[in-house]
Amino acid sequence: MTACPVPYEETDRILLGHGAGGRLTAELLDALVLPALGGPEGPLEDAALLPGHPDLLMSTDSFVVSPLFFPGGDIGSLAVHGTVNDLAMRGAQPVALAATLIIEEGLPTAELRAVLDSFGKAAREAGVPVITGDTKVVGRGAADKLFITTTGIGHRTGGLHPSAAAAHPGDVVLLSGPIGLHGTAVLSTREGLGFEGDIASDSRPLHHLVRALAPIGAHVHTLRDPTRGGVAAALNEIARDSRVAVEIDEAAVPVPAPVAGACEILGLDPLHVANEGCFLACVSATAAESALTELRSLPEGAAAVRIGEVQAAPAGRVVMRTLVGARRMVDMPLGEQLPRIC
Amino acid sequence: MTACPVPYEETDRILLGHGAGGRLTAELLDALVLPALGGPEGPLEDAALLPGHPDLLMSTDSFVVSPLFFPGGDIGSLAVHGTVNDLAMRGAQPVALAATLIIEEGLPTAELRAVLDSFGKAAREAGVPVITGDTKVVGRGAADKLFITTTGIGHRTGGLHPSAAAAHPGDVVLLSGPIGLHGTAVLSTREGLGFEGDIASDSRPLHHLVRALAPIGAHVHTLRDPTRGGVAAALNEIARDSRVAVEIDEAAVPVPAPVAGACEILGLDPLHVANEGCFLACVSATAAESALTELRSLPEGAAAVRIGEVQAAPAGRVVMRTLVGARRMVDMPLGEQLPRIC
Repeated sequence: MTACPVPYEETDRILLGHGAGGRLTAELLDALVLPALGGPEGPLEDAALLPGHPDLLMSTDSFVVSPLFFPGGDIGSLAVHGTVNDLAMRGAQPVALAATLIIEEGLPTAELRAVLDSFGKAAREAGVPVITGDTKVVGRGAADKLFITTTGIGHRTGGLHPSAAAAHPGDVVLLSGPIGLHGTAVLSTREGLGFEGDIASDSRPLHHLVRALAPIGAHVHTLRDPTRGGVAAALNEIARDSRVAVEIDEAAVPVPAPVAGACEILGLDPLHVANEGCFLACVSATAAESALTELRSLPEGAAAVRIGEVQAAPAGRVVMRTLVGARRMVDMPLGEQLPRIC
Repeated sequence: MTACPVPYEETDRILLGHGAGGRLTAELLDALVLPALGGPEGPLEDAALLPGHPDLLMSTDSFVVSPLFFPGGDIGSLAVHGTVNDLAMRGAQPVALAATLIIEEGLPTAELRAVLDSFGKAAREAGVPVITGDTKVVGRGAADKLFITTTGIGHRTGGLHPSAAAAHPGDVVLLSGPIGLHGTAVLSTREGLGFEGDIASDSRPLHHLVRALAPIGAHVHTLRDPTRGGVAAALNEIARDSRVAVEIDEAAVPVPAPVAGACEILGLDPLHVANEGCFLACVSATAAESALTELRSLPEGAAAVRIGEVQAAPAGRVVMRTLVGARRMVDMPLGEQLPRIC
């Protein structure tokens, strides 16, 4: 379904790009992980329905961000927000979190304390209890400081049943806030690029913003937070799983000036950069204005905008109308751009 | 409550022993993790009740075992059994698993495939679907090959409501199988000690064996699988959380001859060595014979035995009657003995 299909060739060894959320990740999942584990049928969603419990959803993510602390957050708050948001993208409010720590021997206790305090604060602010966990320590050099895995259970409320496979032709594509902040903040901090004074991660919980859409729940067909692989990967996943085309306006996509500047210098496409505090929504055209009003009623949705629309064909295709009036393909990123961003 | 209390002194840096399941782990949890995360009140159990869903339990564990493959199992099967068993220790049958992978760049694809196939096979054999997951890749040297985090949701059935805090004075202490196999198999393989020809891990799912106890569910007060820290840690946790004393007979504890030999040469106490395929049960004296009959009716419980009893006082004390008729304290292991055993 992609424009330039490249046949999958299994590499002998796992590459960094296999974890970057782009095409290599999708190929690893399709070729290796899902056949072995017997994954669920249908599209890969941000969270999965718990068998026998139609209102409960489960989501899990490992967080390996480097560095542990960055402007706008740290691995602790990120590990809460990331999982809360994956649940929210299925219309669920968080019920409980479980957390595991893999700690490298020698990690300063003060750093661990700061991360745990941040994790606890973020969970309290999101209104979700941490009910169980596990701690492992590995020798020096066997891990890089600290990895956190957070698993969440969420409860689907009201009429919200969004799915990556449910976008309809004619839907309007909304974006809840500006893009590119998380990825550029982490990258700049890690590499000492100097942008980190102007850019802070957008890491934040999005479940309140999703709940604000409940009054028009039946019109909210798809929600997706553009984390690894950015807006480009999220839109390509929606187009693939819903078998639709998506067209967006470059002029409408909010890229903060410092992000645009950083991306230009680094040779990055802002559409490929990870976010941790905004989401894409495909909403019935008739409900689009109501949805924008609801989103803008909360601080985290104040900058919500309409960026494009869903079309019937060609299925799987994402196109951007550029500032100069041309149209260019928005491809699924291959995957090597920004390792350890979340 | 311990015999020789040592005041907690926070170290500047995290030590390997903080992850070994003994006293250092307990101190790290009490001093740092639980205050920050606002952990659940009451004792630390193998799995936690999901708020608002009194029959659902959640458990999470990160698996960092080294090497990835060992006699009797590998990190894939272990990552299923460990989580299934933590749910089983609360009387629950597994409903769903979630799995995350943290992969070191350069891991041979064939090794990843073998581990995933083993994970999938173990899940199918345990009758539990893998419903969601996540894959991260970190650079060379930022992890040691592969870590897996498995989170499970379980459903509590029938009359089984065991808790680490529910052991009663007068209870009989049962052990479902021989001890020391997992820890010595992994250690011997890792260090090339040569015992690995005679010893294989006991890694296996225990939920069928727990279900066999359902007919006498009300009499099953406590179940605990003696993983990190071994039987010594598990009994000390039961004695601490139930505020009872436990006394066991050395002659009754089944230590296979190759395990005993390996422990003697390595200077290990078999009671401190991790297991992944047996559990301790505290059961009403009146139901003890029925429990043993039920356990022995399944292959994984064929060697179930009575090893001791629960007493009223002194609370928190675990004592062993030795082969020569003496009585010695069974202390909580400090924690430095066997890193990366699970």
